[in-house]
Amino acid sequence: MTTNLTDLQNTLIPLIQRERLEDIAMLLGELDADEVTGLLERLPANQQAVVFRLLPKDRAIAVFERFDPGHQGDLVKGLRAAEVTEIFAGLEPDDRAWLLEELPAGLTAKMLHGLTPSERQMTADVLGYPKGSIGRRMSPEYVATRTGSTVAETMARVRAGLDEAETIYTLPVLDETRHVMGVVSLRDLLRAEPDTVISQIMSDPVVATAYDTDEEAARRTADLGLLAMPIVDLENRLVGILTIDDAARILEFEETEDSSRQGGVEPLRRPYFATPIRRLVSSRIIWLLVLALGAALTVQVLSVFEDTLAQVTTLALFVPLLIGTGGNTGNQAATTVTRALALGDVGTRDVRRVFTRELAVGFSLGIILGFIGFLIVGLLFGFNIGLVIGLTIASVCSLAATIGGIMPIVARLIRVDPAVFSNPFITTFVDATGLILYFLIAKAVLGI
Amino acid sequence: MTTNLTDLQNTLIPLIQRERLEDIAMLLGELDADEVTGLLERLPANQQAVVFRLLPKDRAIAVFERFDPGHQGDLVKGLRAAEVTEIFAGLEPDDRAWLLEELPAGLTAKMLHGLTPSERQMTADVLGYPKGSIGRRMSPEYVATRTGSTVAETMARVRAGLDEAETIYTLPVLDETRHVMGVVSLRDLLRAEPDTVISQIMSDPVVATAYDTDEEAARRTADLGLLAMPIVDLENRLVGILTIDDAARILEFEETEDSSRQGGVEPLRRPYFATPIRRLVSSRIIWLLVLALGAALTVQVLSVFEDTLAQVTTLALFVPLLIGTGGNTGNQAATTVTRALALGDVGTRDVRRVFTRELAVGFSLGIILGFIGFLIVGLLFGFNIGLVIGLTIASVCSLAATIGGIMPIVARLIRVDPAVFSNPFITTFVDATGLILYFLIAKAVLGI
Repeated sequence: MTTNLTDLQNTLIPLIQRERLEDIAMLLGELDADEVTGLLERLPANQQAVVFRLLPKDRAIAVFERFDPGHQGDLVKGLRAAEVTEIFAGLEPDDRAWLLEELPAGLTAKMLHGLTPSERQMTADVLGYPKGSIGRRMSPEYVATRTGSTVAETMARVRAGLDEAETIYTLPVLDETRHVMGVVSLRDLLRAEPDTVISQIMSDPVVATAYDTDEEAARRTADLGLLAMPIVDLENRLVGILTIDDAARILEFEETEDSSRQGGVEPLRRPYFATPIRRLVSSRIIWLLVLALGAALTVQVLSVFEDTLAQVTTLALFVPLLIGTGGNTGNQAATTVTRALALGDVGTRDVRRVFTRELAVGFSLGIILGFIGFLIVGLLFGFNIGLVIGLTIASVCSLAATIGGIMPIVARLIRVDPAVFSNPFITTFVDATGLILYFLIAKAVLGI
Repeated sequence: MTTNLTDLQNTLIPLIQRERLEDIAMLLGELDADEVTGLLERLPANQQAVVFRLLPKDRAIAVFERFDPGHQGDLVKGLRAAEVTEIFAGLEPDDRAWLLEELPAGLTAKMLHGLTPSERQMTADVLGYPKGSIGRRMSPEYVATRTGSTVAETMARVRAGLDEAETIYTLPVLDETRHVMGVVSLRDLLRAEPDTVISQIMSDPVVATAYDTDEEAARRTADLGLLAMPIVDLENRLVGILTIDDAARILEFEETEDSSRQGGVEPLRRPYFATPIRRLVSSRIIWLLVLALGAALTVQVLSVFEDTLAQVTTLALFVPLLIGTGGNTGNQAATTVTRALALGDVGTRDVRRVFTRELAVGFSLGIILGFIGFLIVGLLFGFNIGLVIGLTIASVCSLAATIGGIMPIVARLIRVDPAVFSNPFITTFVDATGLILYFLIAKAVLGI
């Protein structure tokens, strides 16, 4: 697929530069929606709008739906108001919510105005839930049935919802006051006799409330392998449905966010090649400045021990090795615990258990690496220096694993994304404390 | 949910220690399969088998299916052969393949022997594809139809497959020689008249071959929001189906792997608390040793410049700051590009474009940070030293972003997981080259 796209791109760019619009339209006509999406994602922002305009309306909406939300926002800024309103009306209510979060408030009001009253209501319902909640991501277009309905009646509802509903394969089962009492799958319906009552064949429902975070609800849907999960209000009344394909999209978004933060970058929220250089720079510069500020601590620490350094210059040789090892050990612990938190394997109440486990792991790693360090450095630089290095590695590893392990949980406790407080932050913190340990140990062992 | 599990665990552990098996069985009887799974995942390995044995057979299989493959392997080692065979027979063919990869060959043969001939055949088919291919992960239990069949005939097939098939919601459409010509959804079938011919309502198929990597096929299924994707052999003949819930499971597994490697840890492949301390240590020690070996280079480099250091001790103060900034810049680029590769936004043919983009980004970051560094260090330590630091930051950032950006693509080109060659590796590499630049610049500027 990639091969094709690169070739297509090489054909397309000169056509755009020479404004050969008809040729471009012809080329686009031969591609399916996924190919067009892939192609647009590889063009600079200013060229995308040119190409996008040449798509027929249906195709344009299909392509637009496939974009990342940030990328949708970029593209919209390059289009005319009438074009935007048309696309907006063609989207599903949950996709509209993604897009509106990217746009300035003035534009939002204008676009909502362009919808039919019932569509405006559905979009407003979705927008009524807080940012980051699954209420924003669910679809209000579901087919539900009643506990007292028969299979035949339910199949009639399914047929009536064929065109509009987000899914017809999983149906929430409601009581008289819209409380979710169960779920029934289309498979169950096909298996049962037409006059069977739904309450006899429904299964226990697994639901999320509209106020749960989108990541939690999506992770649960995926972990349980559900095709769809009913979303309820705080009184367990049905308000929408989350389908597995939307759950997968939410998880991909969250994974990208976690992976970015783990590497100290703000998430791009648009494909790599569709991101202008200046946005790449701005996604990185803040973190680098924060981390450099943190690293200024190490300059501070080293200044304090400058006399010791001047006395035994050899000590300077091991600074990168020691802080590197500490940073790596801390990163490992933070990575493991951050992922375990994301998967729900570890919760905030486990902070003490994680502390003892990571201390044990860090201490074991420290003993092994410290001993190796002691031997090798001892043989090459004398066993005095070897002892300093060995002891420092042992203590830095214990410290780093413990800090690295509990920081993500602390972040979760104070309601910050665990990935924010993660690897680069821990590295910086461990660097400074590691250096203090190093010089204190050196002074004690070498008697300086 | 977490709250419950912690409490349950605190109730359960004393019962296990006092071997109160009846009380444990009673406690388990009150929980659903997900709660039991969560609970078992938080127990040490030796206690898990005790509890697992007390589950009724159906429940045991439901719980077992929910475990990570590595975790399944651990548990199986604590059970008797008869128990294992029973569980194995209860699994789906694709789940069997996950488990068999975890077990020694002797046990594999024994377990395959315990299956009925048709199930053994299906499992063997799945096992016939290479490790890491989607052939290993697909389900051979599908319902398909023919281009010439009517909707009524197809609905009869659907009804016949209700109990066994992995999904009945997406049906591959085959010609006379089993080539995949299209797909039809149950929704399409319900919408059409009974005597409509399938070829009139089917859509173009999106397929993967059984030899594609599981990650590619799963990512595509999720990106396109498909409920299921037909899997074909090299002649486009149907061999199985990949459902979106299995795709989500594969992606979760891959994300965990990428996130782990990004942090320099081997993936655990089991929940955090179910992982013994010694396995946590072994998942980290190899990487730490490799990285420490790399860091030995920095000791080497610094020894070469030891005289310079002894002359101007101040230079030593900035070593952690400089290599930290270089490492962070490299990490950022590597993180962004690794994720873009995983999402398919960047391919191996883009190496030159990524190179120029990252060089531009790194240079921009370097100019900004270098100028700030020049000012601050200049004011505090004199503008000679400030100039050294500023120039070093500018060149280290350019170097680090470029290396960090292209290394993941190089890894993909030589068929290594891009995440392996990632952050810690790049940090180490950039540390050593950064130091060389630093001292060369210092010697030139300070004239020593």
